[in-house]
Amino acid sequence: MRVLITTIPFSNNDKRPLELLNKAGAEVVINPLGRKLKEADLVELISDVDVLIAGTESITEQVLEVATQLKLISRVGIGLDSVDLLAARQRGIEVCYTPDAPSAAVAEMTIGLMIDLLRSVQVSNHRIHRGEWYRYLGRRLSEVTIGIIGAGRIGSRVIRHLAGFDCNRILVNDSDPSLVLPGHPNCSVERSEKDVIYRDADIISIHVPLTAQTRNLVTRKEISSMRSGTLLINTARGGIINEQDLFSALESGHIAGAAIDVFEQEPYDGDLTSLDQCLLTAHMGSMSVDCRVRMEIEATEEAVRFITGELLQSAVPEAEYDNQRLAL
Amino acid sequence: MRVLITTIPFSNNDKRPLELLNKAGAEVVINPLGRKLKEADLVELISDVDVLIAGTESITEQVLEVATQLKLISRVGIGLDSVDLLAARQRGIEVCYTPDAPSAAVAEMTIGLMIDLLRSVQVSNHRIHRGEWYRYLGRRLSEVTIGIIGAGRIGSRVIRHLAGFDCNRILVNDSDPSLVLPGHPNCSVERSEKDVIYRDADIISIHVPLTAQTRNLVTRKEISSMRSGTLLINTARGGIINEQDLFSALESGHIAGAAIDVFEQEPYDGDLTSLDQCLLTAHMGSMSVDCRVRMEIEATEEAVRFITGELLQSAVPEAEYDNQRLAL
Repeated sequence: MRVLITTIPFSNNDKRPLELLNKAGAEVVINPLGRKLKEADLVELISDVDVLIAGTESITEQVLEVATQLKLISRVGIGLDSVDLLAARQRGIEVCYTPDAPSAAVAEMTIGLMIDLLRSVQVSNHRIHRGEWYRYLGRRLSEVTIGIIGAGRIGSRVIRHLAGFDCNRILVNDSDPSLVLPGHPNCSVERSEKDVIYRDADIISIHVPLTAQTRNLVTRKEISSMRSGTLLINTARGGIINEQDLFSALESGHIAGAAIDVFEQEPYDGDLTSLDQCLLTAHMGSMSVDCRVRMEIEATEEAVRFITGELLQSAVPEAEYDNQRLAL
Repeated sequence: MRVLITTIPFSNNDKRPLELLNKAGAEVVINPLGRKLKEADLVELISDVDVLIAGTESITEQVLEVATQLKLISRVGIGLDSVDLLAARQRGIEVCYTPDAPSAAVAEMTIGLMIDLLRSVQVSNHRIHRGEWYRYLGRRLSEVTIGIIGAGRIGSRVIRHLAGFDCNRILVNDSDPSLVLPGHPNCSVERSEKDVIYRDADIISIHVPLTAQTRNLVTRKEISSMRSGTLLINTARGGIINEQDLFSALESGHIAGAAIDVFEQEPYDGDLTSLDQCLLTAHMGSMSVDCRVRMEIEATEEAVRFITGELLQSAVPEAEYDNQRLAL
């Protein structure tokens, strides 16, 4: 079978994913453009592909229209906003993903970004590199109210890490009312409405998937209800915080700083690049060697299961299809 | 009595330190130059001062020579490398400090810097701000061997925070053989010789005071014994890692990245500012509101105790005088 791998880098640090595919007799093509594919690129490449091992590029109905041989989309990662699940199902294309693999890396980077923002590390770094010395006065994690929006695999790990810093007040919003929040003796973790988080939190971190419900979750309106000087973090998906509204709020100073790892268009080169107080990283939340290798191996193992006629172990659950159906 | 406050900012966020001094009837002068004082500045300002509430500026024998009224130096902070303790004692000048207050802020910032370096956050940030998109592959704290040099008030807090990240191997060096290292079920914390740390650690963080023994602790020689790609952090004092040798090792790529908060000369504008892979901050380790306020209040309370004839509670211990005596 013909396997197209679009996510890059792939099998760079650990050769096992490619070895698994070779052993299964797959004919492998790795992203020949060396960058995130656009819709037209994928249309060009996908017509004779049986299995797609996919990154975050858009897999739209237009792409699937020409993917007449495609039988499986195996996502390296957790987000499914890029995949038209309903169009895939209509064509009998199965979709699987690696929901647990990226969590640890994203959660850990989020803690680093929180400390950076609270202590103005990125601003001081910019300024010293320009020859300017200014000692910013910051706050510790235990001095502030932290808002966590989304307490799934990643958000709940962030909360667990925060417990090691004796945080006084962590406000958590999650759409699942049955979710049990991790408890901690040194830490107050409270379930909270989003409007309370916007009103009370000094630093807010987003850990929800991008869906029709979460697109533009944070716009000018929500930002205006936040206290002056709030810090914002998005390591989830571009489009959840409206980029233009964030830019305006950073420029005016109402939002004192932000750390943004994900963008509406990636690679990103928009207006936020003009602001020192906006810490920008290149969609690197999941990019630790161990998590990346785990994601690649899990996605490849699913591909190999499919090729060898075994049952998939991480088929996308029905709830994800329902989400996309609701958005229609 | 006349009190000169040289450390800045002072009593900015919290008015209590100045109120305490006013209540004690002190005549207060705050650093009129608004920057870290040089020796000549201090000579100019100190001749009629009874009590000095000091930052990290050099309080040398030449300064003390003209400080004929000076009776107390109350250091806002823990480091005593800037104070000629023996010259002070010869003149009957007492010295006190605030050894516990900065620890929490320095330790927390260190964790942020570790994650930044491991995930190339600062490099990605620089590059996106220049319009370049590159997804760096990093490592989590649990994937690497971490070397901690100095396990006193700050180093031991760093180790405790690290435990929340399930670190597999933390190598700790401390000059005190009786020191009990914090133990953790999820974490291997081992006492280690410095040369083993240099050889085995992927990331090394310095938490020792600057003394004659630790000046140039890390030079070309020690760096050459480190593995290629090592990451280095200094939030302790400038001069412990030799800056020129660090610059060469970063330029050659032998040291893959560094986070430096403290410098031989502050404000710093040296060669390291030309390197993206060197994360630079402006001596901000202790600069969280809570720690800064605690440092200022504790140092001020000592000054007030002195003014009102009470016993000092944080006089510098004899071991610090011995350290400086040994260096002669």
